[in-house]
Amino acid sequence: MKGHTRLNALGCVLVAVATIAALSAMAQEKKPNVVFILADNVGYGDLGPYGGGELRGAPTPRIDQLAREGLRLTQYLVEPGCTPSRAALMTGQYSIRNGLSLVIIPGSPNTLSARAVTLGELFKGAGYATAIFGKWHLGAEPQSLPTAHGFDEFYGIPPDISWDSATYVDTITMTHSINAPPDELLAKGPQIVEAVAGGPLRTVKPYTREVRAEIDNELVAKSIDFMKRQTAAGKPFFLYLPFSMGHFPNLPSKQFAGKSRIGQYGDKLMEGDFHVGQIMDTLKELGVDDNTLLVFASDNGPQGETAREMGNSGPFRGELGEATEGSIRTFCFVRWPGKVKPGTSSYAMFSIMDFFPTFARLIGSKIPTDRPIDGVDQTDVLFGKSETGNRDSLLTFIGADMVAVRWKQWRMYLTDVHPTGIGPQREPGMFSASAPMAGYPKLYNIEMDPHEDLQVGALFGWAAGPALEVVEKYKETLKQYPNPPAGNLTHF
Amino acid sequence: MKGHTRLNALGCVLVAVATIAALSAMAQEKKPNVVFILADNVGYGDLGPYGGGELRGAPTPRIDQLAREGLRLTQYLVEPGCTPSRAALMTGQYSIRNGLSLVIIPGSPNTLSARAVTLGELFKGAGYATAIFGKWHLGAEPQSLPTAHGFDEFYGIPPDISWDSATYVDTITMTHSINAPPDELLAKGPQIVEAVAGGPLRTVKPYTREVRAEIDNELVAKSIDFMKRQTAAGKPFFLYLPFSMGHFPNLPSKQFAGKSRIGQYGDKLMEGDFHVGQIMDTLKELGVDDNTLLVFASDNGPQGETAREMGNSGPFRGELGEATEGSIRTFCFVRWPGKVKPGTSSYAMFSIMDFFPTFARLIGSKIPTDRPIDGVDQTDVLFGKSETGNRDSLLTFIGADMVAVRWKQWRMYLTDVHPTGIGPQREPGMFSASAPMAGYPKLYNIEMDPHEDLQVGALFGWAAGPALEVVEKYKETLKQYPNPPAGNLTHF
Repeated sequence: MKGHTRLNALGCVLVAVATIAALSAMAQEKKPNVVFILADNVGYGDLGPYGGGELRGAPTPRIDQLAREGLRLTQYLVEPGCTPSRAALMTGQYSIRNGLSLVIIPGSPNTLSARAVTLGELFKGAGYATAIFGKWHLGAEPQSLPTAHGFDEFYGIPPDISWDSATYVDTITMTHSINAPPDELLAKGPQIVEAVAGGPLRTVKPYTREVRAEIDNELVAKSIDFMKRQTAAGKPFFLYLPFSMGHFPNLPSKQFAGKSRIGQYGDKLMEGDFHVGQIMDTLKELGVDDNTLLVFASDNGPQGETAREMGNSGPFRGELGEATEGSIRTFCFVRWPGKVKPGTSSYAMFSIMDFFPTFARLIGSKIPTDRPIDGVDQTDVLFGKSETGNRDSLLTFIGADMVAVRWKQWRMYLTDVHPTGIGPQREPGMFSASAPMAGYPKLYNIEMDPHEDLQVGALFGWAAGPALEVVEKYKETLKQYPNPPAGNLTHF
Repeated sequence: MKGHTRLNALGCVLVAVATIAALSAMAQEKKPNVVFILADNVGYGDLGPYGGGELRGAPTPRIDQLAREGLRLTQYLVEPGCTPSRAALMTGQYSIRNGLSLVIIPGSPNTLSARAVTLGELFKGAGYATAIFGKWHLGAEPQSLPTAHGFDEFYGIPPDISWDSATYVDTITMTHSINAPPDELLAKGPQIVEAVAGGPLRTVKPYTREVRAEIDNELVAKSIDFMKRQTAAGKPFFLYLPFSMGHFPNLPSKQFAGKSRIGQYGDKLMEGDFHVGQIMDTLKELGVDDNTLLVFASDNGPQGETAREMGNSGPFRGELGEATEGSIRTFCFVRWPGKVKPGTSSYAMFSIMDFFPTFARLIGSKIPTDRPIDGVDQTDVLFGKSETGNRDSLLTFIGADMVAVRWKQWRMYLTDVHPTGIGPQREPGMFSASAPMAGYPKLYNIEMDPHEDLQVGALFGWAAGPALEVVEKYKETLKQYPNPPAGNLTHF
């Protein structure tokens, strides 16, 4: 697993990506390392530089440092859940184009297809060492694994399920009224797994609550080891670290249990802060600080009322699973000493899909031309050369439904909440079926009214025009490239 | 008005305050200047250091600097409206003890009494030059004026009304269908006024929308002039600058109109940022930086849904007028180079009432002993010598009703919302009459659940015990010192 035998079975897609590469001037420089740390369900308002941290009772000094040393995006936009956002990050496409617009669950027919081209393949094709440590959540089928999509190494939780599967053992042992689960039961439950490129998934150990509490320590240790190995080998690396900070159950490690003033969620924020600091320290120790682009972002808004978790959406309405701003806008830091101006912020609209073409440009690679890529190149935003960037719109899907369209500061909802929906939603979300909008689409000015209190469709009806143009442009792409069936429990 | 003839008619209360003064060691040093800038309806989440500023589309670089140079309080607690909070700040008492627990309106019988002892009298008694420029909002009766309560100089809007009275002229001219209001109509409307200690209120000019837009420039210019005069005279000064930043209508000055990305509210935040910077620059220019305690705080939470304004409560539920955390917790910075540690924050509970005894200690004065003082000395919080401070409880009143009690991290609601209430409230507030609580008091853990989503009374009923002890202690004081009638429209 530690890189002795790298199987290379990436298939024709990868070859297509790599051979197109007429290297740009940028890529003829030394190839930069890229480290992408992805937090899980951490909201816009949770961390120090976004009004959380110390203000919330959970100081984040290392993340505060990251903000001082890098760029803070204030309009970083994602999809409303773990699988959708991770699919969008990996492919540069709306998740619905890969049938991944709902959170997948074990046994779901919706998993990443062999045909998908991911960041793994992009970096691999450009000669990078690649690794993912943590949560994949795009499927456990052989063709869906990260190691089937350009990643040399994988270690993490079951790739078709999330951090909460750590509660399996409790559930089982409670049901059976036994104190310690026998090995047999543990073996049937969720397993920590590992794999190398093209190889099968191997189980490592049962994923228990104890493992849950300490897993980010494991993942960060593996990340540090990976960066050290690649630096020693003189090889550029892409490290994807989707760790557990923020996701239920937020069981803190021994080192951080009780460290915050607000309980486990705060403890886990402080633990994540420590881990981000460890990654920064390693880059410095290895002397690759100036040649490494570090991104630290969340996948979607927080769990609050829906799960009685403590994540905070900052000034925005709603949370994970909804189509509101609190669900689809969260934090993102970008740091690259000498390239990204320290202590800055940008209000450019920046989608999680935009990393795909942006990284492609930075490493001198080409993005696929045989499919729609919804991400746009945002290099100029990262380097402070553009104030508003290359994006002025975004679609939001829940399952099979297109529920909202953003155009400049306006958001227009295209569907309404089905009356049988549960949870705190005022707008359609993963926990409430969509219903046809009764009458006129609902319009909000997100920038002036971040909490979406004032429906202004009647006042600014003109904004529906350009907003619907965005919808039409997307629909146009479906003629040549129809979507696979979208995730839905009725699709079993 | 500029200090030539200082009438001294402060009465026996002041003499009592001043003559007790057995000067402490602290006060035998050079007396520090105190500058208190009070924003109006600016919420916890509005400014850069609390997750607003640039994140909201209205950068606040000078206030960000203030946070770097001073202390940021994260549990600064106020009363739910302008008059109540200002009464509490001035007297160190719950506003209800002076009958000022609702916002006063012209003609209301509830104004500051002759018997009240204010910060003006405290500083005056300690030999300070004193001034207030801006909004008093504690009454326009002769005995209620700031210049009847220790302030040498006053310039500002009508002292029994708020910034919104600038809309009077529009209303009148609209009613009369005339383009320009005749002088006669203007003279009947609200007037900018001025006064010197003990003297009458003199009208300066009509308070129009044009004056509204530029008034903070006027108030800051007067503040700078005041500080320069007192520094030249070698006299310690207390400057109270309750300016308009944040209060409806947020008409920006010419210099800042259109400067933010989010409209007038943002423009006004940026304008206020500039003004705070001007005050800091003046202290530096005058060489009194190290001998000046600067406070910059808000009076209460923002106007959001109730007034279609854009203030933001950060992670907390609710807004101005309610008894929720979003209404009664807001921002506060304290800066004193060499004394207050730069770049720090404190989560100690700190009430706006606490400034009264805290300032008294700092200037070597004594607080009145012939009345209950609800504020507590928090010098140790300011100087970083205590993490939790001297406060662990707080009562919240709406009009005549005690609606909530805070004890440590718990808040317990004692009344419910009357079903005829209007507005977005879930809890009792100024815009909804209180009703008896149906059954058990509602309990929230404010620190772990800042948005007050989870009612945990059934789980943590024990917290009602110590919370009700706080109520009982307060009730005990009423035996010797009963309250005057509380503000209520039925009291006319």
